[in-house]
Amino acid sequence: MELYTIIENFQPLNDERLLEKAQELRRPLRCTEVGPAGACILHQDEDGRLQREGLDLESAGSLALGRGQNLCLDFGNHFTGYLSLELAGEGSHPDAPAFLKLQLAEVFEELLEDSSAYDGWLSRSWIQEEMIHVDVLPAHLRLPRRYAFRYVKITVLDTSPKYRLVVKGAKCLYETSADDSAIQLCSRPGTMEARIERVCLRTLANCMQDVFEDGPKRDRRLWLGDFRLQALADYFSFRNLDLVKRCLYLFAGTRFPDGRVSACVFTDPEPVADDTWFFDYSLFFPVTLEEYMEESGDTQTLEDLYETAMQQIDLSLEKCTPDGLVQEEAGAAAFVDWCDGLDKRACAQAVLIYAMRYAIRLAERRRDKEKAQELRRQADWLRESAMEHFWDPQEQCFVCGGQRAIATQVWMVLARVPSPEQARKLMEDSGRFLQPFRMAAPYMHHYYTEALMETGLKEQAREHIRSYWGSMVERGADTFWETWDPEDPEASPYGGKIVNSYCHAWSCTPMIWLRSCR
Amino acid sequence: MELYTIIENFQPLNDERLLEKAQELRRPLRCTEVGPAGACILHQDEDGRLQREGLDLESAGSLALGRGQNLCLDFGNHFTGYLSLELAGEGSHPDAPAFLKLQLAEVFEELLEDSSAYDGWLSRSWIQEEMIHVDVLPAHLRLPRRYAFRYVKITVLDTSPKYRLVVKGAKCLYETSADDSAIQLCSRPGTMEARIERVCLRTLANCMQDVFEDGPKRDRRLWLGDFRLQALADYFSFRNLDLVKRCLYLFAGTRFPDGRVSACVFTDPEPVADDTWFFDYSLFFPVTLEEYMEESGDTQTLEDLYETAMQQIDLSLEKCTPDGLVQEEAGAAAFVDWCDGLDKRACAQAVLIYAMRYAIRLAERRRDKEKAQELRRQADWLRESAMEHFWDPQEQCFVCGGQRAIATQVWMVLARVPSPEQARKLMEDSGRFLQPFRMAAPYMHHYYTEALMETGLKEQAREHIRSYWGSMVERGADTFWETWDPEDPEASPYGGKIVNSYCHAWSCTPMIWLRSCR
Repeated sequence: MELYTIIENFQPLNDERLLEKAQELRRPLRCTEVGPAGACILHQDEDGRLQREGLDLESAGSLALGRGQNLCLDFGNHFTGYLSLELAGEGSHPDAPAFLKLQLAEVFEELLEDSSAYDGWLSRSWIQEEMIHVDVLPAHLRLPRRYAFRYVKITVLDTSPKYRLVVKGAKCLYETSADDSAIQLCSRPGTMEARIERVCLRTLANCMQDVFEDGPKRDRRLWLGDFRLQALADYFSFRNLDLVKRCLYLFAGTRFPDGRVSACVFTDPEPVADDTWFFDYSLFFPVTLEEYMEESGDTQTLEDLYETAMQQIDLSLEKCTPDGLVQEEAGAAAFVDWCDGLDKRACAQAVLIYAMRYAIRLAERRRDKEKAQELRRQADWLRESAMEHFWDPQEQCFVCGGQRAIATQVWMVLARVPSPEQARKLMEDSGRFLQPFRMAAPYMHHYYTEALMETGLKEQAREHIRSYWGSMVERGADTFWETWDPEDPEASPYGGKIVNSYCHAWSCTPMIWLRSCR
Repeated sequence: MELYTIIENFQPLNDERLLEKAQELRRPLRCTEVGPAGACILHQDEDGRLQREGLDLESAGSLALGRGQNLCLDFGNHFTGYLSLELAGEGSHPDAPAFLKLQLAEVFEELLEDSSAYDGWLSRSWIQEEMIHVDVLPAHLRLPRRYAFRYVKITVLDTSPKYRLVVKGAKCLYETSADDSAIQLCSRPGTMEARIERVCLRTLANCMQDVFEDGPKRDRRLWLGDFRLQALADYFSFRNLDLVKRCLYLFAGTRFPDGRVSACVFTDPEPVADDTWFFDYSLFFPVTLEEYMEESGDTQTLEDLYETAMQQIDLSLEKCTPDGLVQEEAGAAAFVDWCDGLDKRACAQAVLIYAMRYAIRLAERRRDKEKAQELRRQADWLRESAMEHFWDPQEQCFVCGGQRAIATQVWMVLARVPSPEQARKLMEDSGRFLQPFRMAAPYMHHYYTEALMETGLKEQAREHIRSYWGSMVERGADTFWETWDPEDPEASPYGGKIVNSYCHAWSCTPMIWLRSCR
């Protein structure tokens, strides 16, 4: 995801001991070399639209390309890694450099877009395109940057009248920190659920690098809200607990000067907190730590990070009014979803209550009875305030700023603000909240599904997985997308689909239920 | 220069022993690090024209550049070498790659051109432009390719809303195989001749690399006609005789299957003859060998290359008609100059006679009396045929295909076809031949100057140097250009000035006279 704030002269608070532990947990990535599985050429038809002409791989490897001609390679699946090409000249000895444009695409449609037309607010530097001169042929061209891709389009911008270019071979050096060698699908073979499960696993694996990246195309970075879901999905699949631990130490090791955990940590050239803080994301720190403890029982990590976890709750409580409501400004600083105009105060309040449940368990693990007791009391107070201010007894739903948004209902249910009966009724009839504040990102769909599960609506949850995530599979997804609205397939939060991320780990969570209910 | 032929399945004839000797003569280049001398920003004015805004270097090193902004650096002189930049972010931590466009220019005007508008026949891959993504900042960015440049324009295509880019420093690693440490100017300080001499030296030095390159921007390659003039100029300046010897061995080491010396030899990835042959260029092989012998007295090289030299004369003689004229097809395969429509038969004939004079001296060095005698006889025969067919006694000049071109007069004079008196009169009154077949390249202007010298018109020759080469100096040339017509400054043989070479060694020859007449 990507939202941003800018703080002038931001100086993060670093704890070198924690950062050293994070660095000690770095592991070499697993590398696999793969070749293309198919090829085609793109031609412009009479209406200026690009049309695909299929090509077998052998013909592709001897195709001589002159000025303006192209070759597209299909690696058969989504990969995070490095591309290399074997290039040669055909004709006379090359008497000028070869000048190439390379476009790397996660989905084929990206190749049909004109990147120069992109005019969104997000940096165009994310578009996976290179212009390259090759001075000497034959050449083994290894691109130095890492890409996320299934397709590669190679366009010859120029050779010379004396020779043409042949792409004799191509390789992708695929990298991941996920060990998928022992993974087996849990869903029944041939079902949509099996297809979804496979795409979930691929999505997570391709985002598991030196840290849990949100997406390997963009932003290639450790975001806390995304990380919480990745860690959860990892427990049900690759179980790289060291990677989870490393990320926890990174978030604790470099923070805002007042102790807040940043929404995001940069790791290159060295770990440093982003000057962006999201109210809800920082609260996922205690949540993620508690879930990690449940999986690992790693008491040393609890000892190292307990204080940071509790501090996130305390700092959030400071942002509450005397009548037990999250302040307007703090609420607006929550992410929740890509949803324009959504009043996020109630969601922020619910996330705080939700996170306190995990913080209480952390306090209990540490036998910090006093803290646990205090947190229970504060959570009750916030819960009561939430019911008082946001619950509409008439309509039997939560209203915030006049909005009856699905996000608000979901988070209140997950925070256990309504009674179990009220919660179940809300979710049974959740269809009435889906408009006009539509769920945009699979991230929000995750919590919606969790709320269905939480209220015992398991079949409704599985049906939602099949229909929502299934609609991406039906459209050919190899990995799940950052943002997807089946009713608005062209939507982008960035003003241009070409910068959308088509492998985004916050979308991989259906595997949690598909693999746990086996 | 660049003209080309294409021969299907061309298999050069290689002599491994000669090629090995050529490779043994490779020497490490001399490297010097230099920094920029000035800076500016380019702004578009209301009429869409680019305007320069000066900037001191200190300000340039802290200028923060956002989307679409640029910084131009001026290295103060022309260099052949490698560019490196020290890049940093300003603002928040960079949250997206920096995406840059770099344009490297030999002359400032190149920066004002829109490269996408180039539509000439020569490869656009010669345009010195790169699009580069920098994933991690700060960065020491060392561009892997070698460029020929004085100016660098860095345009930020994008950073992100959170940060801007600062070019904290820049360096050029300047490379040459010329040792200019002991070089002193011979011309009187402060004169135009001194300015011309300095530009000549710079031009040659920047083309002296692993071989004598025609131009370090384009084609970066060893052409025989260019090489002959470079070797000559080298004797009057840097005296890198090993480099001359290496190039002679390269030309002899890889040839056409019938023994002809190619117009050009590629050296990367390994030495191989181009499938291009120019009638006149191949004849410069014996010329260059004889001149090298005169300088070096290196009898081993003469022994190794004598046969190849003589073969060029013999093969050219085979392309003559029974009445002693170069065949039409062979004449058309001469380069002579960038001059559309010029009938080159007479020039080709003259170059052959000219080359035979040098071949005779080679035979004499080898005490090959019989061959010397035979060559004298054949040269006389060709000279008589030339007078008979091309001399117009009425007009007292040479006519070929109805043309009274300056190139024809010059080459006939250099071949000593007319009597000394006829030659002197021709050159005294050479102004009448300058239209319509205008001299285009300094290469032709060299031979024009030589013909003036040859006929004793020294002051006229010096005046031509001052006016022709001086007009480039007046326009700010740091190095002399591949092609230049003061009356048509926008001319390009390639359909676009942006691929012109502005440091071209065949233009450096005035130093031969400026340094020998001291």
